[in-house]
Amino acid sequence: AIAAALLDAGGAAGPWAGRTVLITAGPTREPLDPVRYLTNRSSGRMGFALAAAAREAGARVILVAGPTALATPPGVERVDVERAGQMYDAVLGCIDEADCFIAAAAVSDYRPEREAPEKIKKGGDALTLALEPTPDTLRAVAARSPRPFVVGFAAETERVSEYARRKLNDKDLDLIAANRVGPGQGFDTDDNALEVLWRDGSVALAEQPKTALARELLQIVAERAGFAEATRSHHAP
Amino acid sequence: AIAAALLDAGGAAGPWAGRTVLITAGPTREPLDPVRYLTNRSSGRMGFALAAAAREAGARVILVAGPTALATPPGVERVDVERAGQMYDAVLGCIDEADCFIAAAAVSDYRPEREAPEKIKKGGDALTLALEPTPDTLRAVAARSPRPFVVGFAAETERVSEYARRKLNDKDLDLIAANRVGPGQGFDTDDNALEVLWRDGSVALAEQPKTALARELLQIVAERAGFAEATRSHHAP
Repeated sequence: AIAAALLDAGGAAGPWAGRTVLITAGPTREPLDPVRYLTNRSSGRMGFALAAAAREAGARVILVAGPTALATPPGVERVDVERAGQMYDAVLGCIDEADCFIAAAAVSDYRPEREAPEKIKKGGDALTLALEPTPDTLRAVAARSPRPFVVGFAAETERVSEYARRKLNDKDLDLIAANRVGPGQGFDTDDNALEVLWRDGSVALAEQPKTALARELLQIVAERAGFAEATRSHHAP
Repeated sequence: AIAAALLDAGGAAGPWAGRTVLITAGPTREPLDPVRYLTNRSSGRMGFALAAAAREAGARVILVAGPTALATPPGVERVDVERAGQMYDAVLGCIDEADCFIAAAAVSDYRPEREAPEKIKKGGDALTLALEPTPDTLRAVAARSPRPFVVGFAAETERVSEYARRKLNDKDLDLIAANRVGPGQGFDTDDNALEVLWRDGSVALAEQPKTALARELLQIVAERAGFAEATRSHHAP
């Protein structure tokens, strides 16, 4: 009964015990010059909640975080980055240690082609900014062999399920967590809802605090990744 | 002696008593779409420190703040905005009440010409972003007649004094506070140094906590604006 309670709670004997989880969180910033930058809306809360929940469930957690105001969850190894390129380098530098990769960061997918070393002086006229794609960390991780279990996120303003499934297939992910974003929804909020999709299935997680949502999502990931099987076989009938 | 002590401390009988000060603080965000935006590095700390110091010195303080994680100083009237255009509208809407305008915000001076209503899908190729100047709140306030005492800020990565004096003259400001910014300097830091310039003079304020710097700057502003004269005339010789 004690073992069953431990298993139900996750904990040191659960499916995450002894696993290494690599999680990205927060936005990235892509500088035009030392003062101006392009970025994405993201508080980092979902990624930090996942890091805390994975650690509580017994995993070793490496958190690669863009700029946020959030405190590091206890026991989590944190690497701070600013740009998409730095996030790419930090993740690829330790991906071989990971059993699971969860890309919760809202990475800037474009950056200025040129970064001015000094502050650009305002001219008063219109100007055009040339942008180029940033390195795609999620795609690079999914393209590795062997690879960890790969979880992506999709933040969409419309056609959420359709775009999420397209991203799942296009980037060859194992699982994707999708949510609708917009004014007052998804960003800088404590609550969120998620639609979780994989190749041949999906499940909707109702709106709830991101801390609770993180625990539910980790349960699904553990099941889909087969992490739970070893411990489950010890369950009494 | 008691009156002199009160005057020395600023306080309810000092030069700021009964004055209305309008202060802008923080960055602004200029959206490309519901997810991506262009912004400036700014924690808002200098503007919030000025608001707190002006209130402590007996002024009525209206703080027009871009997105920051900072708490409103006690007794300060706060108006939250996100974009440069909203900051312009908020300031011009109450500028007639102000004896002094302090533009401490790091306003985005460019914004995307078009804002997409839905998240732009990543194409994978380079793209160009057309930018246009945002409304210039500081210039608009300085162009009014009558106008409050107008204080600007200049955050520069090089040639700090030269660029600051150019901005002072070009925008017809009464006073400008300039600082050098760059990695680890001026942004997201508790300490800062300022060079304060006006038409026929300047003074350097040594590096110190932004709260102390705010009090020093307000003393200089009160002197340059002539706010101190009425009370000073009551000083015993």
